[in-house]
Amino acid sequence: MTDSPSAARLDSHSSDFGDAAYREAVIELLGAIAYGELSAFERMVDDAEMSPSLGDKMAMCAMAVKEFGHVQPLLDRIESLGADPVAALEPFEKPFDEFHEHTAPRDWWEGLIKAYVGDGLAADFYREIAAFLDADTRDVIVKSLEDSGQAVFVVDRVRAAIVADPKLGGRLALWGRRLMGEALSQAQRTAADRDALTALLAGGIDRPGLDLAAVSRMFTRITERHTERMSALGLDY
Amino acid sequence: MTDSPSAARLDSHSSDFGDAAYREAVIELLGAIAYGELSAFERMVDDAEMSPSLGDKMAMCAMAVKEFGHVQPLLDRIESLGADPVAALEPFEKPFDEFHEHTAPRDWWEGLIKAYVGDGLAADFYREIAAFLDADTRDVIVKSLEDSGQAVFVVDRVRAAIVADPKLGGRLALWGRRLMGEALSQAQRTAADRDALTALLAGGIDRPGLDLAAVSRMFTRITERHTERMSALGLDY
Repeated sequence: MTDSPSAARLDSHSSDFGDAAYREAVIELLGAIAYGELSAFERMVDDAEMSPSLGDKMAMCAMAVKEFGHVQPLLDRIESLGADPVAALEPFEKPFDEFHEHTAPRDWWEGLIKAYVGDGLAADFYREIAAFLDADTRDVIVKSLEDSGQAVFVVDRVRAAIVADPKLGGRLALWGRRLMGEALSQAQRTAADRDALTALLAGGIDRPGLDLAAVSRMFTRITERHTERMSALGLDY
Repeated sequence: MTDSPSAARLDSHSSDFGDAAYREAVIELLGAIAYGELSAFERMVDDAEMSPSLGDKMAMCAMAVKEFGHVQPLLDRIESLGADPVAALEPFEKPFDEFHEHTAPRDWWEGLIKAYVGDGLAADFYREIAAFLDADTRDVIVKSLEDSGQAVFVVDRVRAAIVADPKLGGRLALWGRRLMGEALSQAQRTAADRDALTALLAGGIDRPGLDLAAVSRMFTRITERHTERMSALGLDY
C-alpha cells in the first residue's frame, strides 16, 4: 500500500492504486485522453466554420459538443485519484497542439475526415492501452471514446462528395495517410517523454505488459482499423 | 384559422398561431435567438484560446457548451411551428457575423467581458420582446436565455485582474461601451430588415404593441441593466 494521503479516496475496486507508479501512469493516460478530447472539440468548432452550409456547421458543432461531454468524467476520475485535473492535462497541451498545427485542414472535407479518422485512431489506441488497466478506469476510458456521431455523418457526406467530384477522392486518400503518419509520430514522441506511461505498457511484477512483438501486433490492429475507416469513406486506394 | 398544412402540428396553447404574420414573426425571433446563441458558442470557443491558463480555457469552453445546449429547444420549437430550423436561422448569419467581426476581442479580458456583457444584453433584449408572445413561446425563449455561468466566472476574474492592474479597468470600461453601441446598431439594422418582427412589436388588433414611448422605455431598461453589469465588473466609471 502507498502512504499517499490520497489513498483513502480511491474506490474499493482500485487495489492496483497501491502501486504509486501505476497510479501515476493512469493519471497521465487520463490526462492525455482528456486533453485530446478537449483539443478535438476546439478544432472541430474551428473547422466547422469552413462548412458549406449552416446545417453542416450545426451538425459539426453538435458532434464537437458531444465530444466535449466526454471530458468531464475523465476529469472526475483524475480527481478521485487525488490529482489535480488541470495539472494532469497540462503536459499534453504541446504535443496535441503540435499535432493540430501539422494537420490543419485546408477545407471542409479535410476537416470532416480529420474529425472521423483522427478521433477513430485515438480511440483505437486508447482502447488498446485500456485493456491493461483496472476495470473501473477501463470503463471510464472506454465510455469516453464513444463515437460522437462522426461515423454516420462524415461517411455520408464524404461518399456523396466523391461521387460528385472523383478527383477529391485522391486528395482525401492522401490526407488520410498523412493524418495516420502524423498521429503515429506524435504518439511516439509523447510516449517517449512520459516514463510512467511507457512503464505501464511494459508491465509489472503482477501485471502483464507488452513485449516488442505485442506492440507490433497492436500497431497492426490499429492500422487495420484505420484502413477499414478509409474504406468506409470510399477512400481505399 | 390558417389553412397552412402545419397548423395541425401546433400545440393546443397556440391559438395565436392562427395569425400567419404572428407565426412568421415568432419563427424569425426564434431563428435570431438560436443563431445568436450558436454564434456566441463559436466565438467563446475561439476566444478561449486566448486564456492565460488551461483551467480558464476549460471553464470558458464549458460555458460555451452550456450556451450551445440552449439552441436545440429553440430549433425544436421552430420545427413544431412547421418551419425548417436551418432556414429560420440563415437570415441571421450575416448580421451576427458582422457584429462579431466588429467586436473581435484583442485579448482574454475583452473576450471575457464580451461573453458576459454581450450575452446579458441579448438576453435582456429578447426577454423584453418575449413579453409580447404566447406563453409557450415565451417559456422556450426565457429558458434559452439562462446565464451559462458567465456572471460568476467573469465577474470574479475581471475584478481580480483590475485590482492587479488598475489601468486595465479604463480600457475594459471603454470596451463595454463599445459592445453596447455595436449591439444596439446591429439590432436596429436587423430589425429594420425584418418586417414580421417589427410588425410584431407594433402589436395587432387583439395584441398589445409598443408605441415609440414604450420602445424608448424598453431601451432605458436595457441600458440600466447593462450599467448594472458593468458595475458588477467594477467598470462603472
